[in-house]
Amino acid sequence: TPIQTPDWVKHAVFYQVFPDRFARSSRIKHLPGLKFKPWGSESIHDGFQGGDLLGVVDKLGYLEELGVNAIYLTPIFTSASTHRYHTYDYLEVDPLLGGDDALRELIDKAHERDMRIVLDGVFNHTGRGFWPFHHILENGGNSPYIDWFTVHDWPLQPYPTEKDIPPNYSCWWNLPALPKLNTNNPAVREYLYEVARHWIKFGIDGWRLDVPHEIDDDDFWRTFRQVVKSENPAAYICGEIWSEARRWLQGDQFDAVMNYLFTGPAISFFAAETYRNDYIHPHLPFEPIEADKFASLIDRMYGYYDWEINFAQMNMLDSHDMARAKWITQDDSALRLCVLFQMTMPGAPCIYYGDEVGMTGGPDPDCRQAFPWHDESLWDYDLLRFYRRAVALRRTHECLRVGELTTLHAEGPVYAFSRNLNGSQAVVAFNTSHERVPVNLKPRHLEGPFKQVWPLESHEGHELSGDELSCTIPPRDAVVLVRGE
Amino acid sequence: TPIQTPDWVKHAVFYQVFPDRFARSSRIKHLPGLKFKPWGSESIHDGFQGGDLLGVVDKLGYLEELGVNAIYLTPIFTSASTHRYHTYDYLEVDPLLGGDDALRELIDKAHERDMRIVLDGVFNHTGRGFWPFHHILENGGNSPYIDWFTVHDWPLQPYPTEKDIPPNYSCWWNLPALPKLNTNNPAVREYLYEVARHWIKFGIDGWRLDVPHEIDDDDFWRTFRQVVKSENPAAYICGEIWSEARRWLQGDQFDAVMNYLFTGPAISFFAAETYRNDYIHPHLPFEPIEADKFASLIDRMYGYYDWEINFAQMNMLDSHDMARAKWITQDDSALRLCVLFQMTMPGAPCIYYGDEVGMTGGPDPDCRQAFPWHDESLWDYDLLRFYRRAVALRRTHECLRVGELTTLHAEGPVYAFSRNLNGSQAVVAFNTSHERVPVNLKPRHLEGPFKQVWPLESHEGHELSGDELSCTIPPRDAVVLVRGE
Repeated sequence: TPIQTPDWVKHAVFYQVFPDRFARSSRIKHLPGLKFKPWGSESIHDGFQGGDLLGVVDKLGYLEELGVNAIYLTPIFTSASTHRYHTYDYLEVDPLLGGDDALRELIDKAHERDMRIVLDGVFNHTGRGFWPFHHILENGGNSPYIDWFTVHDWPLQPYPTEKDIPPNYSCWWNLPALPKLNTNNPAVREYLYEVARHWIKFGIDGWRLDVPHEIDDDDFWRTFRQVVKSENPAAYICGEIWSEARRWLQGDQFDAVMNYLFTGPAISFFAAETYRNDYIHPHLPFEPIEADKFASLIDRMYGYYDWEINFAQMNMLDSHDMARAKWITQDDSALRLCVLFQMTMPGAPCIYYGDEVGMTGGPDPDCRQAFPWHDESLWDYDLLRFYRRAVALRRTHECLRVGELTTLHAEGPVYAFSRNLNGSQAVVAFNTSHERVPVNLKPRHLEGPFKQVWPLESHEGHELSGDELSCTIPPRDAVVLVRGE
Repeated sequence: TPIQTPDWVKHAVFYQVFPDRFARSSRIKHLPGLKFKPWGSESIHDGFQGGDLLGVVDKLGYLEELGVNAIYLTPIFTSASTHRYHTYDYLEVDPLLGGDDALRELIDKAHERDMRIVLDGVFNHTGRGFWPFHHILENGGNSPYIDWFTVHDWPLQPYPTEKDIPPNYSCWWNLPALPKLNTNNPAVREYLYEVARHWIKFGIDGWRLDVPHEIDDDDFWRTFRQVVKSENPAAYICGEIWSEARRWLQGDQFDAVMNYLFTGPAISFFAAETYRNDYIHPHLPFEPIEADKFASLIDRMYGYYDWEINFAQMNMLDSHDMARAKWITQDDSALRLCVLFQMTMPGAPCIYYGDEVGMTGGPDPDCRQAFPWHDESLWDYDLLRFYRRAVALRRTHECLRVGELTTLHAEGPVYAFSRNLNGSQAVVAFNTSHERVPVNLKPRHLEGPFKQVWPLESHEGHELSGDELSCTIPPRDAVVLVRGE
């Protein structure tokens, strides 16, 4: 059977929300006296600023105006951490976020606007408060749940008083706060599948999977896919795999991955002159590159996978797990070029919350600051306008989403490609230099004239002579021409 | 306004169930591979034997035959301990017990048989896995829940590696496993009231309150009563107060207490010769006493409270918090006299599960062994028959439940009293000696002859001359005569 991924994803523009820091609603009925940090205070790991899911509901209009039609939420289940990757209860939305009722409202209101909601599934490890782990902690080897985790010796020491002693049970990255589930236990598998099914039934549109390679078991993920797709064939399954991911992208496990293979080359090329080379991330090798190297990286990336997969990849410039693109690139034009590239390439772009108004910040926790709703003087409105236009460009031209990709030119500062879909064609040409650069391209033959759709505010001019297209690309910008629509 | 307690309680015979050890159903759909201890294995604190609420449902016929019409369940909410006094989630029945669905079935099936269900509310302290405590443990002083508990210093040490270091947060009895809720925090109050309301709405018939004196705040309990009674005016509120309890029994807080003031004198009198005097319990002073001392203790006990309260007290001979009555008394006749006394006095008797088939055992955990459904050869059928008859005696004669109490005789081994209700009367005379004892009593005047209703199998004979009643009480037994019914 041919590989199949959800159609809606191919046409989606995602927006990633870190719920504690995106928006706080006044509509949540919290118990009195909960002590949140002030909105916009310093981002610290333990500093709950009280963002919630009705806050997201309140901003759906803003997101729609931005052009977003899918939201990926980092974890929202009950968890005693601001990032909520330490799950306490997989079957309950955190009461600090408004509980299940708030998710109900978010899903319903989003669906009314044709927006999708994807949740973060953290199935490799749990928090120390997760019921079966807590049960073992309290009862030792006598707990009926003893086979849910892997304990090396007793007594269990999940809150060690001395540092640097490795935990005496299996953990993710040896972090005692993150005990690793024993997914070889059929009960654990059944439980996790039930969780996956429960929320799909509840109405979510897909799962982003946290560190799924740590569950080193293709059968686990194959069954996971069957469970999810049998409940909703259009549900999206997107794994967090930072490297080449063919193992999981054969059509029987995930639909896509968080495509960080897109991130490294994009920043390396578009921000070659300015990126922060003292920013070291184990999964993101940056290096100053020119168009030929860039093209080879991009070709290699798309070459790994079936196009059904490529069109459904989640293309990121940044996320909660890395510094913000603005901070890394240190240059607004580089950021804009990256965004334009994201909006014109195969794969669903994902905008990390607040990037569009100029939020910046280094590695976690700086990349998780509160969205500045409280002070619009902090907003970069020019950038926001740019984002809206760039997203609209993608949303307007179907060939930019699902058209076939052909590299047309890759040399020095210029990278150009075409996107062909049935009778329509887009030609996209980037120029990373600080000069205007003329370029001759030879896109596939198609009748009819090109129309310039980018830049929006200036007419750059182009000439079509036979199959040869000549145009000039403004400095640190791109030209996008379309025809046949 | 006059004091008012629920009518049904005055007519109730309770049966106390310790859910992990009462009965195990095969109908619970557990996740595979849960490791329970074998049913009937040694009773240890951490040894889950897998009793569940459908197990109770399966035994409702047995309980009905015993004559029981109310069940008091020790805690059933999610809790990582066999006794479940360490609450993890107040709003969920423990999945090991079958979850909310099993309680639903138990309540519905019990109500069909006119049986009531009373739950155990542990509102003073929680377990270490309780969400807000866990939140503070993980996030320290930055947790929004910081005011839910009282922390003395940081870092919190709920799992100390060295013993005998007092915990650095407020706990019940300085036990780190039992952090004390800060009930001065309005949020905590609101939360606990919501819990109380939730389960009353769910259909339970009342709350037994664990260590309520530890929440040293009459207003807390007054509001608690209002919350409960506004949801169901007939709901029972019974505090675990081991001593004189006038403070709470003025009509505005509890309906009753677990009446251990009944237990001590009963065992002291009826088992004066045999009780285990090396059994020390801080709240249960035993001493060999004769009828005059016994009468004064009993009179004092009833004298403390309004009769509306006395009729609704929960009269215990034992419980999960003490050795079993059979073990303490070390004599079957003493146990039977205690039970007969319990069945003829004001206040709702409570039978601790398995006492009726001869289960024995010293202090916790020995008093919490598995009910021997697996081996009926362990049953004392004579004792069971006795229990059924003694319970039936009470259930048959309304005056034994709500009749006015008058002491008629209290001297040496003989204690006798009458119970008058409108035109009916019961005369009850106990003889703790090993000889037949004649006694002359002068019950309140009433027309008509007495009928002997106890013992059932022998006719002891009695004579009524004017208002003077003469009868002979068999050795270590009682005579019960009734008239006017």
